[in-house]
Amino acid sequence: MNPLTSALLTDLYQLTMLQVYFDRGMTATAVFELFVRKLPPGRRFLVAAGLAQALEFAAGLRFTAEELDWIERSGIFRTGFAERLARLRFTGAIEAMPEGTVFYPNEPIVRVVAPLPEAQLLETRLLNLVHFQTLVATKAAHLRLAAPGKRLIDFGLRRAHGAEAGLLAARASYLAGFDGTATALAGPLFGIPVFGTMAHSFVQAHETEAEAFARFAETFPERAVMLIDTYDTVAGARAALAACPGLKGVRLDSGDLDALSREVRRILDAAGRRDATIFASGNLDEERVRALVSAGAPIDAFGIGTALTTSADAPYLDAVYKLQEYDGRACRKRSTGKATWPGRKQVYRHYDADGAFARDVVTVVGDSQPGEPLLAPVMREGERLPQPDLAEARAHCLSQLARLPKALAYPVEIAPALAALAEEVDRRTLTT
Amino acid sequence: MNPLTSALLTDLYQLTMLQVYFDRGMTATAVFELFVRKLPPGRRFLVAAGLAQALEFAAGLRFTAEELDWIERSGIFRTGFAERLARLRFTGAIEAMPEGTVFYPNEPIVRVVAPLPEAQLLETRLLNLVHFQTLVATKAAHLRLAAPGKRLIDFGLRRAHGAEAGLLAARASYLAGFDGTATALAGPLFGIPVFGTMAHSFVQAHETEAEAFARFAETFPERAVMLIDTYDTVAGARAALAACPGLKGVRLDSGDLDALSREVRRILDAAGRRDATIFASGNLDEERVRALVSAGAPIDAFGIGTALTTSADAPYLDAVYKLQEYDGRACRKRSTGKATWPGRKQVYRHYDADGAFARDVVTVVGDSQPGEPLLAPVMREGERLPQPDLAEARAHCLSQLARLPKALAYPVEIAPALAALAEEVDRRTLTT
Repeated sequence: MNPLTSALLTDLYQLTMLQVYFDRGMTATAVFELFVRKLPPGRRFLVAAGLAQALEFAAGLRFTAEELDWIERSGIFRTGFAERLARLRFTGAIEAMPEGTVFYPNEPIVRVVAPLPEAQLLETRLLNLVHFQTLVATKAAHLRLAAPGKRLIDFGLRRAHGAEAGLLAARASYLAGFDGTATALAGPLFGIPVFGTMAHSFVQAHETEAEAFARFAETFPERAVMLIDTYDTVAGARAALAACPGLKGVRLDSGDLDALSREVRRILDAAGRRDATIFASGNLDEERVRALVSAGAPIDAFGIGTALTTSADAPYLDAVYKLQEYDGRACRKRSTGKATWPGRKQVYRHYDADGAFARDVVTVVGDSQPGEPLLAPVMREGERLPQPDLAEARAHCLSQLARLPKALAYPVEIAPALAALAEEVDRRTLTT
Repeated sequence: MNPLTSALLTDLYQLTMLQVYFDRGMTATAVFELFVRKLPPGRRFLVAAGLAQALEFAAGLRFTAEELDWIERSGIFRTGFAERLARLRFTGAIEAMPEGTVFYPNEPIVRVVAPLPEAQLLETRLLNLVHFQTLVATKAAHLRLAAPGKRLIDFGLRRAHGAEAGLLAARASYLAGFDGTATALAGPLFGIPVFGTMAHSFVQAHETEAEAFARFAETFPERAVMLIDTYDTVAGARAALAACPGLKGVRLDSGDLDALSREVRRILDAAGRRDATIFASGNLDEERVRALVSAGAPIDAFGIGTALTTSADAPYLDAVYKLQEYDGRACRKRSTGKATWPGRKQVYRHYDADGAFARDVVTVVGDSQPGEPLLAPVMREGERLPQPDLAEARAHCLSQLARLPKALAYPVEIAPALAALAEEVDRRTLTT
């Protein structure tokens, strides 16, 4: 069973519900929408990401013989269920905001329209993929805005939550404007630029720091960026210059990065090496990056690790996938604090005279509105439609970030047609 | 390239360092240790986990033809590097604390002893696997202690950071005392009990709640646990009783769980259904679980989702993998705020008269001490030694949790022999 593509990569309740749906012939069209209920702390907006992997999962969804065997032997399901699952494929339609689109709470970013069992079975993995990449793309976009003109590199595989998280974080952060990643496998997998030179252990494995730098520069003259904080950063800068005439740059990974970067800059400049760059890393997050940038610390590039790949200051979004319509009947959940807007929805975006986002209007599909509709078809009858590649999604995201509104609070309006549908649904549900 | 086992699942700098190590014949024995620098907020102790997957990765480490091809075409490395990597296997030794062991900051939990390039190349994925499972096992153990006697189920796949995170969180939380998971694939993959019945969408897809409950109970009479908060929890409890004579239990997923559980309990009891259980879920975390338990809310089981699988209140540990010795020479890092204890270390645990942990002593290997040594061999010459299975690791963890010290601050002492080695290393490094 492939841990990344298995149809069992789902909550057990999806399967028990499917058994009932099959038993009762409940295979009419269902409409689910994926959205985020509210902004997490420290975020002004959200960035949609993860759609490519979600569509790949939907297109490839099927139960293998081994998985069906587990279902049969589990003792949970009725005879015949596994046979029915063996034939299950995703045959539905999906509409979505393109990856890299900036969006706001309560705006659907993915809509699935399919026979109920198929749409239901997608839920867990679809959320799992879109939630995580949206989380990291959102985090990365805020970092991108905090450090205009600086090079930003993902350093976070080691403390990402597993391998898939590390790889998808490299993808999502690149999509949102990062310049590359330290994760080697993200190179061949996604075509993302990869970066990296040496760790402290490299310096320590040599008798002296100078020897470590000289050897590295000899093997990699074009990549001679030296990590200079293993013992003493200032002495390390001098050692790097002395050991390596073709020094490309240095990396600082600890201490007072503001003061140290200025001192190291002076040392490099005094040696006539104005072209040598200064790279900073070490438990960096948005606030610290912003402080270093606004203080004018002479840092050219930042490596962001754990704070990026775990989105440490807000490690999850209140992302949900909710049934909005079944068999032509709109529905909504009214659980305390968790009520949702019913029906199939479209988001129309309005821009001001400068091209910046002015406001969004959410309404029901069919209630045509002025503004730019944000959701578009991405899958029909289980087949993926042509999609932007990662470079195109990244360019789209960067152009979105350039059009963010100045104001902190962004208006998302509910159109009268949607409010009317919600009232109608409540009247019906409350009287049954 | 397999995204979970690829040798490229590493930071690029591991590969650039390896190139230099090969160029210079730096293949003497290196010793790396993995440890956590400090307790994250809200944690009293740590629980070691993830060793099984880390050893599996080490034992299977090799570059595929496709990976070597990428390395050759990347333009980063010298000719001949890929050929050298093609022969690379992990041939070293590993010692570790058994999974489920409670440990404290600055105590090594994994030690790798191998030729420098092999030990270096393990770093990223070893940390990635051990960090995440240790993070979740630690979180789960604190939840386990907050709800003695209650059933605890992992509900967190959808907002876990990718599929591997969801699967390994199911494993790590079960290891630390959870009773099971909602993640179906964790059943066949790890042999963990799986739980689940229905979502709100199931209720909404039916004309009425009563119809949804009746149909579910008919298909699954033995698993008739009804989700009763879609519209109104109290009305839902009555509907569940009416629709389902064999009701096994109900689940509350929103609202004031303390008040609602008491009211639902009264309704169930009044109907003569004292045996029907109450399951609670919905954005639960340790603090809320503890409050519900100490208030005496009649809740039998808790489903914990996002807070568990992302360890949301502390989404990472300051876990590191540091070179402690190369070619017989102990070393340490002295970077500001990141200094480490050098050399190969052992942790000796002392117990009080009741069998509770009294204190730990960290010293150099060879400095025999009273107390129980916590690290033991788990791999020799690249071959895994027999290890406890998941059920045994879980039993070990539960027995560890029963022996936690009463005091909040736990004494971890540095033995004189280790302090002396650190001084000696500093003298040597500072004078070179």
